[in-house]
Amino acid sequence: MALIVQKYGGTSVGSIERIRNVAERVAKFKMLGHQVVVVVSAMSGETNRLIGLAKEIQKEPDPRELDVLVSTGEQVTIALLAMALKDLGLKAKSYTGSQVRILTDDAHTKARILAIDEENMRRDLDSGHVVVVAGFQGVDEKGNITTLGRGGSDTTGVALAAALKADECQIYTDVDGVYTTDPRIVPEARKLETITFEEMLELASLGSKVLQIRSVEFAGKYKVKLRVLSSFQEEGEGTLITFEEDTMEQPIISGIAFNRDEAKLTILGVPDKPGVAGLILAPIADANIDVDMIVQNVGHDGTTDFSFTVHRNEFKKAMDVLNGVKTEIGARQVTGDDKIAKVSIVGVGMRTHAGIASKMFKALAAENINIQMISTSEIKISVVVEDKYMELAVRALHQAFELDKAPAA
Amino acid sequence: MALIVQKYGGTSVGSIERIRNVAERVAKFKMLGHQVVVVVSAMSGETNRLIGLAKEIQKEPDPRELDVLVSTGEQVTIALLAMALKDLGLKAKSYTGSQVRILTDDAHTKARILAIDEENMRRDLDSGHVVVVAGFQGVDEKGNITTLGRGGSDTTGVALAAALKADECQIYTDVDGVYTTDPRIVPEARKLETITFEEMLELASLGSKVLQIRSVEFAGKYKVKLRVLSSFQEEGEGTLITFEEDTMEQPIISGIAFNRDEAKLTILGVPDKPGVAGLILAPIADANIDVDMIVQNVGHDGTTDFSFTVHRNEFKKAMDVLNGVKTEIGARQVTGDDKIAKVSIVGVGMRTHAGIASKMFKALAAENINIQMISTSEIKISVVVEDKYMELAVRALHQAFELDKAPAA
Repeated sequence: MALIVQKYGGTSVGSIERIRNVAERVAKFKMLGHQVVVVVSAMSGETNRLIGLAKEIQKEPDPRELDVLVSTGEQVTIALLAMALKDLGLKAKSYTGSQVRILTDDAHTKARILAIDEENMRRDLDSGHVVVVAGFQGVDEKGNITTLGRGGSDTTGVALAAALKADECQIYTDVDGVYTTDPRIVPEARKLETITFEEMLELASLGSKVLQIRSVEFAGKYKVKLRVLSSFQEEGEGTLITFEEDTMEQPIISGIAFNRDEAKLTILGVPDKPGVAGLILAPIADANIDVDMIVQNVGHDGTTDFSFTVHRNEFKKAMDVLNGVKTEIGARQVTGDDKIAKVSIVGVGMRTHAGIASKMFKALAAENINIQMISTSEIKISVVVEDKYMELAVRALHQAFELDKAPAA
Repeated sequence: MALIVQKYGGTSVGSIERIRNVAERVAKFKMLGHQVVVVVSAMSGETNRLIGLAKEIQKEPDPRELDVLVSTGEQVTIALLAMALKDLGLKAKSYTGSQVRILTDDAHTKARILAIDEENMRRDLDSGHVVVVAGFQGVDEKGNITTLGRGGSDTTGVALAAALKADECQIYTDVDGVYTTDPRIVPEARKLETITFEEMLELASLGSKVLQIRSVEFAGKYKVKLRVLSSFQEEGEGTLITFEEDTMEQPIISGIAFNRDEAKLTILGVPDKPGVAGLILAPIADANIDVDMIVQNVGHDGTTDFSFTVHRNEFKKAMDVLNGVKTEIGARQVTGDDKIAKVSIVGVGMRTHAGIASKMFKALAAENINIQMISTSEIKISVVVEDKYMELAVRALHQAFELDKAPAA
């Protein structure tokens, strides 16, 4: 007998029919003798509908009240799923975030989980109940309803698995696992049976939409065994996210991530002296703009060029900030480009293999794709290229690293 | 400065536009220096939509989960109204039933309020907030969400007014007060400026849809000053429900109530001996059927006839029960009729005036309306007539007692 936490996203519970399907899947695990905790999101579309209502009233809805509002989405789903489970003859009980209680800080709309009271859930599990918990929501110390931000239901699932010391946390989604890259771009993309936690973290943060990054961090911190599965397929083991690195079986590159969410800013002719990077980035940080890649080349003639990327939504704001500080730091010019894409290869195997970067750059050069920026970590290499080359770059790299072929066992 | 509790029903908050209107009305009271607690229902149609979803899953939805589900309706409204108030520049804070905390028993879907913790609301009111509370819902001792049953938002309003010792509880609805009878049936029906608590209780229980009966009982018990007003009219004092009876100004009859919700059952040729009424009604009570009017006439030839009314929905069930016990109690025959209507005249003035009943019966006889059953209390007289005569009976009585004319002050 195992204790399993299963999380179903909005698409998986998007209709009465689908809620019934989830109930049947849960019932199967129950029949096998497992204890099951189910975490659900709001029915697909519901959160957006509620936010739409709020915005009809306030252009920038009050965060506390927005949480009161949108948390009703998951509350509807837990009740309906508990009913569907009972209709199958199972014992089931629903819990809102406050009822569990999932204690969070008071940062409305992006709260962080501080503690989980597992006593009530444990008692219900021991008496044979399926425990159904609302994802995405919690409660602060004063009893105010909070939400964890988009994708927060994954985090709820992992946090519950950690608190209950569950044997596995299964994230059901509309894909059947983690792929070497997006199959819509590379039809030969291959489903991975396992991926390391570190690789998953890089893939999640680099734009792979399968798992919300905070949930992966959480799983890493508390060593929760995480599995991504399809809620629409009966069979399949999905992809297991592992903590062990077995370099014997480890492919050099596990996957290719990409996104078009960023924009690039460059400040030209900056005096090449200590502290100048800080002078440039401090006002950016003060404006609450997150910076991703940062590149500074060796200087010449006493000046240097400094580039970084920000989220595309903050491009204009960042340009305004840079133009404001240009004179102050004695720079020549500020340029920017929001027609860029970032493509990254990820793999723990590259730690022990040389020449990965040059293989990557050669593959891109062979397609005449110019590299604008490069940034590396121990297990990934990211490049910025012109927007329109993104798909071509991903395909070229997928082929160059032979990701369509399963690694030798 | 007064402390006012205002309750707005589903129609009054049925759209974003109407929620804005409610916020503006609340703002006016705030500007006058009053402290305001607002109780709201779910947006009109929402509760039925949610129940519809539940019934798609379970024919008889699990009561605990149904409460989790439908309580989201008011939760949406409190958040939206709090936003609308903030948009007007007011301080506002929403509370669910659990957050207040409105403690109830654990009778899901028809819970009763046991206690209200007013500390948090008091603190918010003192710091200048409008307090917005979800009607219809509470929480039991174990933290389960409960609901008070249909119309429960009125009860929440009155209960909060009692707990906070509010100066007035204003019930905003789609009518502008309590009328002598339904203006759709009698165009001359007149709005009452005041009505006594006892009369209101009779009118509410007899089918007048203005106020939910439990809220009136609650108001009576805790001496809450209650006022019924229109949420769609700017002006008007509505109808005040008073505790004082001033017979000098009191009309003999205050209003006429009526309904078509009942059915009549008669058991003929029952042996006329002590305890027979109990023998008939015990199995009815065992079947959880509520009985309203009961009439037993003097017997003759050692037998008697026994009649009573039940809700029309339970007519068939009650007939089956009676047919089951017929032989046991030695009765001759069971008959039933669900084509009946009940018409009642209500007024504390009839306590001190004789001849009211005969005036009523004469008015009906003048229209050739046959009276099938009669039941009286200190301040009302009810008759059962054939269904099709209901409107005619109401009009005849309204005219006979000159209810279109305001009483002499």
